[in-house]
Amino acid sequence: MSLKLKNAKRIEGLDKNVWIEFTKLAADPSVVNLGQGLPDISPPNYVKEELSKVAAIDSLNQYTRGFGHPSLVKALSCLYEKFYQNRIDPDKEILVTVGAYGSLFNAIQGLIDEGDEVIVIVPFYDCYEPMVRMAGATPVFIPLRSKPVDGKKWSSSDWTLDPQELASKFNSKTKAIILNTPHNPLGKVFTSSELQVIADLCIKYDALCISDEVYEWLVYTGNKHLKIATFPGMWERTVTIGSAGKTFSVTGWKLGWSIGPKHLIKHLQTVQQNSVYTCATPLQEALAQAFWIDIKRMDDPECYFNSLPKELEVKRDRMVRLLESVGLTPIVPDGGYFIIADVSLLDADLSDMKDSSEPYDYKFVKWMTKNKKLSAIPVSAFCNAETKSQFEKFVRFCFIKKDSTLDAAEAIIKAWKRQAS
Amino acid sequence: MSLKLKNAKRIEGLDKNVWIEFTKLAADPSVVNLGQGLPDISPPNYVKEELSKVAAIDSLNQYTRGFGHPSLVKALSCLYEKFYQNRIDPDKEILVTVGAYGSLFNAIQGLIDEGDEVIVIVPFYDCYEPMVRMAGATPVFIPLRSKPVDGKKWSSSDWTLDPQELASKFNSKTKAIILNTPHNPLGKVFTSSELQVIADLCIKYDALCISDEVYEWLVYTGNKHLKIATFPGMWERTVTIGSAGKTFSVTGWKLGWSIGPKHLIKHLQTVQQNSVYTCATPLQEALAQAFWIDIKRMDDPECYFNSLPKELEVKRDRMVRLLESVGLTPIVPDGGYFIIADVSLLDADLSDMKDSSEPYDYKFVKWMTKNKKLSAIPVSAFCNAETKSQFEKFVRFCFIKKDSTLDAAEAIIKAWKRQAS
Ligand SMILES: Cc1ncc(COP(=O)(O)O)c(C=O)c1O
Ligand SMILES: Cc1ncc(COP(=O)(O)O)c(C=O)c1O
Repeated sequence: MSLKLKNAKRIEGLDKNVWIEFTKLAADPSVVNLGQGLPDISPPNYVKEELSKVAAIDSLNQYTRGFGHPSLVKALSCLYEKFYQNRIDPDKEILVTVGAYGSLFNAIQGLIDEGDEVIVIVPFYDCYEPMVRMAGATPVFIPLRSKPVDGKKWSSSDWTLDPQELASKFNSKTKAIILNTPHNPLGKVFTSSELQVIADLCIKYDALCISDEVYEWLVYTGNKHLKIATFPGMWERTVTIGSAGKTFSVTGWKLGWSIGPKHLIKHLQTVQQNSVYTCATPLQEALAQAFWIDIKRMDDPECYFNSLPKELEVKRDRMVRLLESVGLTPIVPDGGYFIIADVSLLDADLSDMKDSSEPYDYKFVKWMTKNKKLSAIPVSAFCNAETKSQFEKFVRFCFIKKDSTLDAAEAIIKAWKRQAS
Repeated sequence: MSLKLKNAKRIEGLDKNVWIEFTKLAADPSVVNLGQGLPDISPPNYVKEELSKVAAIDSLNQYTRGFGHPSLVKALSCLYEKFYQNRIDPDKEILVTVGAYGSLFNAIQGLIDEGDEVIVIVPFYDCYEPMVRMAGATPVFIPLRSKPVDGKKWSSSDWTLDPQELASKFNSKTKAIILNTPHNPLGKVFTSSELQVIADLCIKYDALCISDEVYEWLVYTGNKHLKIATFPGMWERTVTIGSAGKTFSVTGWKLGWSIGPKHLIKHLQTVQQNSVYTCATPLQEALAQAFWIDIKRMDDPECYFNSLPKELEVKRDRMVRLLESVGLTPIVPDGGYFIIADVSLLDADLSDMKDSSEPYDYKFVKWMTKNKKLSAIPVSAFCNAETKSQFEKFVRFCFIKKDSTLDAAEAIIKAWKRQAS
């Protein structure tokens, strides 16, 4: 084939994607899908209703402001001002993007140069690595490590960064660290002292922090979500990212936002205006209306930001019991809607899985999807090449699922256990 | 300010954007807005109704396939197979993107390397230049030139590329040419022989063609839209781009698509999966349903692909008469929904416009928006620095507007004329 028909170098080797591979597998309707972070509970009725209403209004089907629909950036500034010490300028300090994914992309393309280093905590939401590579920068990985928990419940809070190891990753080439709290896939909610260590290093090395907080509302009893941007000296160097899909259980809306100081957000805006220009108007208006409903009742248990984590905590506890009942030791998440467990104890017979070069968890999930009709996501997909072996015994289950789905998963897992014993 | 807070080099100097500047100006509700390509006619009812319906369905508010919602890529392949000699594989030869804008971005990032040259026809839809620059490539410009038309109506078809001049722009570094037919802002519909010249050069120099055809349905009596991808030898080297916003007069939906051979589309897919991952599900499903309605009645005058150009042709003719009535010589467009005219004859007194370094048309439009409460878009915004002076006497009016808006524009222009004479 002619050379000119080839890809640009910046995307060389970046064509693998775990979601595409495993979503295809789970598309079989007979499979119980605990894979992708895709709620099968109903989104709140008012959210859907707002979209139905907006669709009927002519002008809301046309282009809106490129950096964010006016009513949406206003709602976002009003909401987030409650959590920051400062006012948030809706026009200059907020950018609405195509999902949190789009915010990550805009931040990385707008701020990270060829040759820069970006610190990425392992395991990581899988797009961080290819996005950093597409910008020509080098990801520098640091794993979360667990202390021994013999006997006790294993919690996501047992997984921590070693402060010295973290310090050793920073140097003058470090342009940024990507933080994710609550963490996907571990469910870890970073504590104040953990965030302080990161903040101190960012300030010392004059590095930026890209803080992916898409699960910000989903923290369970005894935990609190903290924003690193509110730590002294951090606002000016932090881009904080949120997601409508995760906030209102409408992942298909693909709206997200970046919040930060004008001198950073303006560069994300430049990427936006040269990549997609603007986000869908009807979805932005419906989202703004949904936000106003919940902003007005933030202290009310009915506010979705309060009711959803309550609903999910019950599901989390159910998943913990289910996984324990078959002899596994899940890592109990403090936030988010995923739970991971070492599944090698299930002793699945993977001998007839073809591609033997794949990590254990890839083979395991493919085997389980095919033979047990239950799908999940392999945790090594959230690792760089060098750390895959540390996590390849783990798989991730998503529990933002209606009870009937969890019932079906429970039936599968229990039958499997009976067969085995 | 610290160096680390600076933008990445790839976006240096790419922060200017005509839409942001002029949309802000036109936001004043007392201004009659013939600026941005933003329909104020109603989109078809069934299009809005499909979205209202889809919003109520839980699963259609969640993530869908990253490269295009299954029902949408199926509808697109069914539609476009009517125009290509070949079948179109919905999964491998189509990519659904965030507007045509997103398709342009994915094509350029996926296929164009640092150091490549990309031929851009002037005037051009303004994002082509910064997108090419963001990829580190060099845009090579070639202007459309008009032959003299003394006395006769001036038509967009009088504007042509000089074949020799075009040939002189191609060389071994030429990676691609960006074509736009029907053309924004000129309204030119490229003829078969014009496209053949471009195709021959692409084949001779083994270059790609990125063909922006967002106004494909909007061609007026006596003209026919042709797809360069259907010319011999071109399918394998062409990415053809369409837009839901332009097809169904819902610019706020921001859905577009790229169609081309698998060996090119897969690189656009790689960019997509590392930038936004997937497009909004409810909009994609509603769009698919809307397409099915019109695919089933393609030969019917009621089919929107037939009825909209008929409706717009009347508006085009009205704009021609209006502009002529005040002594201007508009360039009558053969397609699209814009009309341009040399406005220097209106002798506006721009002496109190502050920024004197701006091109004439920028000052003119700002002055007209402020003093006449009528907005338009300066055509030099569609030019590179070197050709701005060739086009700075022209402004672009958008005519996909309801009659009351055109009435208001007419009243303004006629009163202005009376005042002047
Ligand atoms: C940590 C994290 N960041 C970002 C995203 C992407 O969010 P969105 O769908 O809003 O693009 C996800 C989705 O699963 C996620 O888990
Ligand atoms: C020639 C051309 N290409 C692309 C676009 C962008 O289309 P979309 O809104 O689908 O991104 C436009 C919008 O005006 C256009 O005129």
